[in-house]
Amino acid sequence: MPLQPLDATLQETFRERMDPAIFSLPDIGYLQEPRGRYTGTSPLLARPRDLFEVVTLVKLANEMDVGIVPYAGGTGLVGGQVMVDGPAAMLLSVERMNRIRDVDARDNVLVCEAGVILADVQAAAAAADRLFPLSLAAEGSARIGGNLATNAGGVQVLRYGNARDLCLGVEAVLPDGTVFNGLKRLRKDNTGYDLRHLLIGSEGTLGIITAASLKMFPAARERATALVVVEDPDAALTLLNIMRDHVDDTITAFELMSAEGYRFLAEKVPDAPQPFAEIPAWSVLVELGSGHGGRLEERLMAALEAAMSKGVIDALIAQSEGQRQDFWAVRERIPEANRLIGAISSHDISVPVSKVPEFIKRTGPLLMAMGADIRINCFGHLGDGNLHYNVFPAKGGDRSEYEGRYKAIKDCVHEVTDALGGSVSAEHGIGRLKTGDLERFGDPGKLLAMRAIKRALDPKGLFNPGAVLRV
Amino acid sequence: MPLQPLDATLQETFRERMDPAIFSLPDIGYLQEPRGRYTGTSPLLARPRDLFEVVTLVKLANEMDVGIVPYAGGTGLVGGQVMVDGPAAMLLSVERMNRIRDVDARDNVLVCEAGVILADVQAAAAAADRLFPLSLAAEGSARIGGNLATNAGGVQVLRYGNARDLCLGVEAVLPDGTVFNGLKRLRKDNTGYDLRHLLIGSEGTLGIITAASLKMFPAARERATALVVVEDPDAALTLLNIMRDHVDDTITAFELMSAEGYRFLAEKVPDAPQPFAEIPAWSVLVELGSGHGGRLEERLMAALEAAMSKGVIDALIAQSEGQRQDFWAVRERIPEANRLIGAISSHDISVPVSKVPEFIKRTGPLLMAMGADIRINCFGHLGDGNLHYNVFPAKGGDRSEYEGRYKAIKDCVHEVTDALGGSVSAEHGIGRLKTGDLERFGDPGKLLAMRAIKRALDPKGLFNPGAVLRV
Repeated sequence: MPLQPLDATLQETFRERMDPAIFSLPDIGYLQEPRGRYTGTSPLLARPRDLFEVVTLVKLANEMDVGIVPYAGGTGLVGGQVMVDGPAAMLLSVERMNRIRDVDARDNVLVCEAGVILADVQAAAAAADRLFPLSLAAEGSARIGGNLATNAGGVQVLRYGNARDLCLGVEAVLPDGTVFNGLKRLRKDNTGYDLRHLLIGSEGTLGIITAASLKMFPAARERATALVVVEDPDAALTLLNIMRDHVDDTITAFELMSAEGYRFLAEKVPDAPQPFAEIPAWSVLVELGSGHGGRLEERLMAALEAAMSKGVIDALIAQSEGQRQDFWAVRERIPEANRLIGAISSHDISVPVSKVPEFIKRTGPLLMAMGADIRINCFGHLGDGNLHYNVFPAKGGDRSEYEGRYKAIKDCVHEVTDALGGSVSAEHGIGRLKTGDLERFGDPGKLLAMRAIKRALDPKGLFNPGAVLRV
Repeated sequence: MPLQPLDATLQETFRERMDPAIFSLPDIGYLQEPRGRYTGTSPLLARPRDLFEVVTLVKLANEMDVGIVPYAGGTGLVGGQVMVDGPAAMLLSVERMNRIRDVDARDNVLVCEAGVILADVQAAAAAADRLFPLSLAAEGSARIGGNLATNAGGVQVLRYGNARDLCLGVEAVLPDGTVFNGLKRLRKDNTGYDLRHLLIGSEGTLGIITAASLKMFPAARERATALVVVEDPDAALTLLNIMRDHVDDTITAFELMSAEGYRFLAEKVPDAPQPFAEIPAWSVLVELGSGHGGRLEERLMAALEAAMSKGVIDALIAQSEGQRQDFWAVRERIPEANRLIGAISSHDISVPVSKVPEFIKRTGPLLMAMGADIRINCFGHLGDGNLHYNVFPAKGGDRSEYEGRYKAIKDCVHEVTDALGGSVSAEHGIGRLKTGDLERFGDPGKLLAMRAIKRALDPKGLFNPGAVLRV
C-alpha cells in the first residue's frame, strides 16, 4: 500500500481519535528551511505533549498509511525537516516535550526530552557546575532531538566528539509504534546491537527520538585562547600536532580561517573585531580548557614557541575575557557575513585531517579555472578535517547571476572531496538536499544495508519520506 | 530453508571451489573458551588470507545454507566464538589477515586488518610515537577484529572510550557477501546510517569485520600514579569527581579494589606486591597522563588534599617507574588470583556511576543471606560504573561444591543490577552465555528492532548462529 496523502478526511480522523488540541495548521516558519532553499507543504502539524501521544500518532499514521516528518528546532541545513513533494504528510514537532527530567552532577548525566532547546541543555548543565559541550551557531533554537537525529557537530568536536558521542541513551518511537526504552545512564553496556547509534544520525527516518540521557563534563576551570597566524593550512596542521603533544586533550577548539573571512567581515559586518592590522592569509583560533592548575597559558606559549620555526608567524593570546570574546566573534560572525554576501554554493565537507591542505590546494584552482569571478571563503574545524568551503560571487556580484554554475561548482568540490577519501556531508547530514550525493558517493554496500534496515524497521516508509534514502 | 550441517559432502564442496590450503580441521584451542565453560564443535576451520576469500566463503556458505562462526583471538568470555549446538558450522578465523596497512602519525590514524593482535596495534602506534589506548588483560592474544565485534572495554575507557569510540571506520563482509567498504579515516561523516556502530558490538552476527581504521592519540609525556585508600566506595566516587574537577580528562584509570583482592593475591600470588602494611578495605588505583608541562604530580597532590576531609584516608604516589608497575601489578594480577581460586560465578556488570556504592551495599548482604560461606571480590572500572563482581567459595572450599547455587547467585546479582538501571554485560557482550539474560533484562522494543535488523541483513541466520539472539 503506498503512502496516502493526508487529506481532509484523514486529518479529521486524527482529530477525532486524539485530543484535537495537539493539532493545528503549520505556519510558514515550520515549512521553510533556514537558507530558503526549500518551502515544504504540510496540511497538519501535531505537537504531542508526551511519549504516549507520539505513540498514538505513529500508530494512527500506520493504520492510515500516512507519512510523518519529525520536526525539532527546524535549524537543519539540508532539508531533512521540510517535505516538498510526495503525498502530503504530517509534521510532528517535539517542541512541547521540553522537560529536563534530571541533572545529576555526580553521574555527570542530564536526562531531557527531545524538545529542549540546546542552549537550555547547556544552561542546565552549567547550573550544576558542569559542561554540556555540544555548541553550534543555531544553539538558541535547535532542539536536542534534532541535534541527535542529525548527529550535530559544532566547535568542540575535536575534544568531546559529535552529538552521538555525548549521548548515553535514547528513548524513541519506532515506525510501528514500538517504544525503544533506551534511556540508560551507563558508560558501558554491551548488551546487543547499538540501536542508539543507529537512530542517531538517521535523521528521523528510523525512529522519533523523544528523550535522551546526555553526558556532562567538568566545567573548564582555566582557559587559554589564541589567534595564531600561520603560513598556510599545512603549517596549521603542524601546529595542531605540536599542540596535541603539549596540551593534548585540553584543546577544545582549533578553527581555521582564511583571509576572505576577515574581508567579508570588513565588508558586511563592520562592527566585528579585526584583531590584526593586516589581514592574515591563514589563521587559527585555538582554545584550551582544563581543570585547576592547568597553567594553560604557559603551556600554550611553550607549544607556540616550539611551532615558531615551523610555519607559525604570529600569535595573539587573549589577555582578558573581552579579548577572548573578540577572537571568538571573528570566527562566529563569519557565517553571518557569508549570509549577507550570499553564497553560490556552500559545502560541509570532511577529509582525513592530513588531507586538508591538499584539498584546499586542489579545489581553488579547479574552481578558478571555471571562471575567476568568484571568491572562496574556506573556514572550519581543522582538527576534525571538516571545512565549510563556500563559494561566493565576485565583489559586487549577485548569486543569481551564477545559478547556472551551481551544479558544476558543487560537483567539483564533491569530486575532490571524494577523491581524497572524504565525506560530502561532515556534520549537516543528507536530508533531502544530498540524497543524490549519497547515491553517487556513498559506498554501494552501505546503501544496500541502509535500504535493508529501512525496510525492516519502516516497511511502509512512513518516517520522513524522501529524506536520506529516496527509495 | 533451515541451516544445513556442514557434513563431509559440503566440506568437500568448499575445498573444491576454493584453494584447499585455507581449510583445516580446527584443533582444540579453537573450540574451547578461556574459562572452560564451553567446548564447541566445528568440523572445518577456514583461514582466509584476504577480503576476496572471505567474500567467497560467505557466498558459498549462502549457497549451501551453512552457518559461519567468525573467530578472531578467541579470548571472549561469553562464548561468542564457540558454537556448542545447532547444525555444524564453519569456523572462520581472520588470523591470517594480519597486516597493518598504514600508520599515519599526522592523521593519528592506524589502518589494519582484523587479524592483527591488539598488542601489535599498540606497538605499531607506539613506534610512531602515538598511543592506541585500548588495553585489556588478553591484549597479547586478542585480535582487533574481535575487539571491535565485541566492543571491548578495558582499563582506559574512562578517558578514551570503548573500542567503538576508537574506530573511525570498518571494512566488513555482510551475510549476503556484500562488502561494506567503510574504511574511511574521517573524524566527521554524516552520510547515512552509521553501519560501523551497528557492526561494532554485534558479535559477528551481522557482518564479519575484515579491517578497521583506528584512532591514535598523543603518547603521554608525563604520568602520575597513586594508590589511594578510601573509606568506602562512596568516598571513591567523591574522589573521582574532585579529581575530574582538578585534572579533568587527564585521568586515564580509576580502578576500585576491595580488601579481598589483596587477600587473594597474598593467598595465591605471593610474589605480587603488597604496597600497604595493612590491607585497606577499599582502595583506588589512579593514573593520570598528559602532554608536556602537565605537572601532574603537583595537581594530583592538590586534588588528594582537597579530598582528604571527604573520605580519603591515605595515598601512595609512585616515585619511580618501578613503583608504578608495582601498583599496576596489584590491579592486573587480581584476575590471576581469581582464576587460581576459581569463581562460583563471575559478573561483568555496570550501573550508573553514582549507583556503584548502592550496588555494593545491596548485593553483598543478599548473597550472604543465601549462605555466608562465600567470598566476594569486587573490583573494576569505577569511573565507568563497571564492576567485576565475582563470588568465590570460602577459603579452602571448592567451586564444585557450589554448583547448585550458581544460578541463584547470578540471578541475584543481575536483579540488583537491573533494578539500579544497569547492564548485565558491561564490556564482555552477550555471546551464547547471556542470551537468556538479554531476553529477560533487555528492553522489549530493542529486542524487536534487533530481530528485525538481524532478519533484514541475515535472513538465513548464517552468521554466528545462536549468539546474541537465539531466535
